[in-house]
Amino acid sequence: MAQQRRIDLVLDSVKRLLRIGATANLLNLLQKQHPADLAQIFSELPDKERDTAFSLLAERNGRLAMEAISELGPEAGAALLATRSADEIARLAQEIPSDDAAALIDYLPEELSAAVLDLMRPKESGVVENLLEYDEQTAGRIMNPNVFALAEDMTVGEAITALQSSRDVEMVFYLYIVDARRHLVGVISLRRLLLVSPETPLKRIMTPDPISARVDMDQEEVARLVASYNLLAIPVVEEGNKLVGIITVDDVIDVIKDEATEDMFRLAGVSSDEHVFTPARQSLRMRMPWLVVNLATAFLAAAVVGLFQNTISAWVALAVFMPIVAGMGGNAATQTLAVIVRGIALGELTWSNSRKALMKEILVGTGNGLATGIIAALVSWLMYRDPTVGALLAIAMVINLFVAGMAGTLIPLGLKALKFDPALVSTVFITTFTDVCGFASFLGLATLVTRYFHRAG
Amino acid sequence: MAQQRRIDLVLDSVKRLLRIGATANLLNLLQKQHPADLAQIFSELPDKERDTAFSLLAERNGRLAMEAISELGPEAGAALLATRSADEIARLAQEIPSDDAAALIDYLPEELSAAVLDLMRPKESGVVENLLEYDEQTAGRIMNPNVFALAEDMTVGEAITALQSSRDVEMVFYLYIVDARRHLVGVISLRRLLLVSPETPLKRIMTPDPISARVDMDQEEVARLVASYNLLAIPVVEEGNKLVGIITVDDVIDVIKDEATEDMFRLAGVSSDEHVFTPARQSLRMRMPWLVVNLATAFLAAAVVGLFQNTISAWVALAVFMPIVAGMGGNAATQTLAVIVRGIALGELTWSNSRKALMKEILVGTGNGLATGIIAALVSWLMYRDPTVGALLAIAMVINLFVAGMAGTLIPLGLKALKFDPALVSTVFITTFTDVCGFASFLGLATLVTRYFHRAG
Repeated sequence: MAQQRRIDLVLDSVKRLLRIGATANLLNLLQKQHPADLAQIFSELPDKERDTAFSLLAERNGRLAMEAISELGPEAGAALLATRSADEIARLAQEIPSDDAAALIDYLPEELSAAVLDLMRPKESGVVENLLEYDEQTAGRIMNPNVFALAEDMTVGEAITALQSSRDVEMVFYLYIVDARRHLVGVISLRRLLLVSPETPLKRIMTPDPISARVDMDQEEVARLVASYNLLAIPVVEEGNKLVGIITVDDVIDVIKDEATEDMFRLAGVSSDEHVFTPARQSLRMRMPWLVVNLATAFLAAAVVGLFQNTISAWVALAVFMPIVAGMGGNAATQTLAVIVRGIALGELTWSNSRKALMKEILVGTGNGLATGIIAALVSWLMYRDPTVGALLAIAMVINLFVAGMAGTLIPLGLKALKFDPALVSTVFITTFTDVCGFASFLGLATLVTRYFHRAG
Repeated sequence: MAQQRRIDLVLDSVKRLLRIGATANLLNLLQKQHPADLAQIFSELPDKERDTAFSLLAERNGRLAMEAISELGPEAGAALLATRSADEIARLAQEIPSDDAAALIDYLPEELSAAVLDLMRPKESGVVENLLEYDEQTAGRIMNPNVFALAEDMTVGEAITALQSSRDVEMVFYLYIVDARRHLVGVISLRRLLLVSPETPLKRIMTPDPISARVDMDQEEVARLVASYNLLAIPVVEEGNKLVGIITVDDVIDVIKDEATEDMFRLAGVSSDEHVFTPARQSLRMRMPWLVVNLATAFLAAAVVGLFQNTISAWVALAVFMPIVAGMGGNAATQTLAVIVRGIALGELTWSNSRKALMKEILVGTGNGLATGIIAALVSWLMYRDPTVGALLAIAMVINLFVAGMAGTLIPLGLKALKFDPALVSTVFITTFTDVCGFASFLGLATLVTRYFHRAG
């Protein structure tokens, strides 16, 4: 909170200094901020002022400016860069680690990013291009290739000397040990170096075969490894165990947050690229496809209702209660879906225990269908004094919540089996399922009753 | 993936060894595992076998057994402990850091946890009791009070000696510097110590005023600080800046995951205490209240439909299309809700920019209402050759999606203003809102049309 208040104060000053054109004071103030705070300040400035502030800072302190827009996220960061010349972007991109540069350059318009890569120093641009060759959302894409490694035949003393002369490498709290062909053979924590005499060979004190990630490993899997083994960083290796990079825990935190956002948004039918302040026009375009899909499925549900028009016009109380059956099924399915999708994401739900999960969800769905069905039957009987409608309501709810538990479990598991994201279903699909099933069971049963018992409302 | 296969193999062996009673081999195998792997193995064993395996391991290697169940999470871990005597639990609890012990003990039945605290060594139990006095979900509750701090008048050489003799303290990659009254005055990274001569005073090389968390800070806020400043740990201070503990990044990752699960589950109307394998009976009980609330709100929506029964019996096509209006509103509201709730959680949406967010959501809702409303009108006209129903459908959808955007933004913001969790609304409430509004606008408009234009289906 105190932090937030401080940032708000700085933000006010920045706006004031921009307004009166006090460039020197503004630069002074901006340069004193942490990159993360600058990112927040940039994000809260109106577009034009953000651009001015970033330009000023980029000229004076390119590194800080670039660190700030990296914190802002690659999409928003690239948007700020995109108005600049390829020359300038190439110069700025060299100020930050290549994984961050790659992420930003990847979001630039295609022509501009090609021009930038051409203009960067050959070595730097080679590294960035290599990173961009890995698939999105893999370890290779998010790693920093600038990893600090020591030869296995070094002593502790030599390692400390090497450390003292190294600059600008990420995370030297873990020292990775490689053999002559740069195969990863061990790891030593920085603290361990302080506890032994300088002549000790590294080989003797290293932990052999550290946990590592393959370049093509999914970033979600990488995050799971780092989180479950409480690591501060994980080495990244190529085929044959060759050390090629490192992923630090701060990048893992970003992955965990992004994946959680993605799952939550997918369930709600929102693109994972959306943010609170995605421009309205863009949000409108991004959400519309989901709503159109929903419309199509809603017409499907409506068509089911249409099949029973005669029953409804003869017995209009059915129209009053049919949304209840559908709605309850939709909500029960949403509950199951959230638990199952999150269980898969957290690694709690695996193939071996999926049967157990299915049985449980069916049991819970049916149980809740029975309980709420009886309540609904009683209330509807009190409202309409019509026991038949109540009984139909209860039976249809049991059927629909049974289906909700089953579909809410099987659909995400099925998507996982087909190598899709289990969260892809979104509640849109699952609620169609329960809408159709709810209307069909309730109105279908009602039609049978009217037909065979000559009952009408 | 390779990791998962390895664990599955170990799991099979564990089951086999348990079956044939090969205790010595089993212990051998279990002792070779990482605590995180053991946690997964325990979680996949049937209850009885899990209990046997844990008992065996706890007797031989209490520390590893306790580390494993800490990884399993405090709730499941406490369930495994609860069948044991207070004596034994007290002995085992002393094997792990006090923050982990406190989390486990907090989940034991009340009598048992009191007995355990009585039996622990006075110093240890004092520490645990102190931790349990902080509110849940605050920095004080999740910190480790065992923090490594150095006096500001020490030299680098003295600091290294102190480090060499320290055991069992968490995270010595950051060294916190305190004054004579244990006020936090600075921080030095372990690496920095290696770069300067031993006689350098710590005071000269420390970074003053490090970012810290107050004991009563919400754990979500702590996670936000650690994530945005890319920290590996954050010091925890009491009133007056006295250093009392440390929170490491691995605990922050757990907080981030838990909070994301909580938001996702709350939106879906599931208790945040639920897991995939919460026993069916318990899940049933935990989900039922939400479904009963939903039932009540569904009856409210049904009552709205009931008001228009006469209109419906005269014009039954309305019954066919009314779920479309309601359903589209529900889905649009769910989209808005997900974006707003996540925006608040990630700190992107603040008070100062909430107006902008509201305007955007209303614009997006209305825009999508217009676009999908026109499509719906055309389709319904093709189906029924009835332009009036189509026009009503389109108008009602614009109204309902406008309301969806507004309610989806204002309700979570309102909850935040009242100091509730913005995710508390859950889609249950918001869809009632859009159901009621959808039915009322569609059927209400239809009633006006039939009344004033003498139109009937």
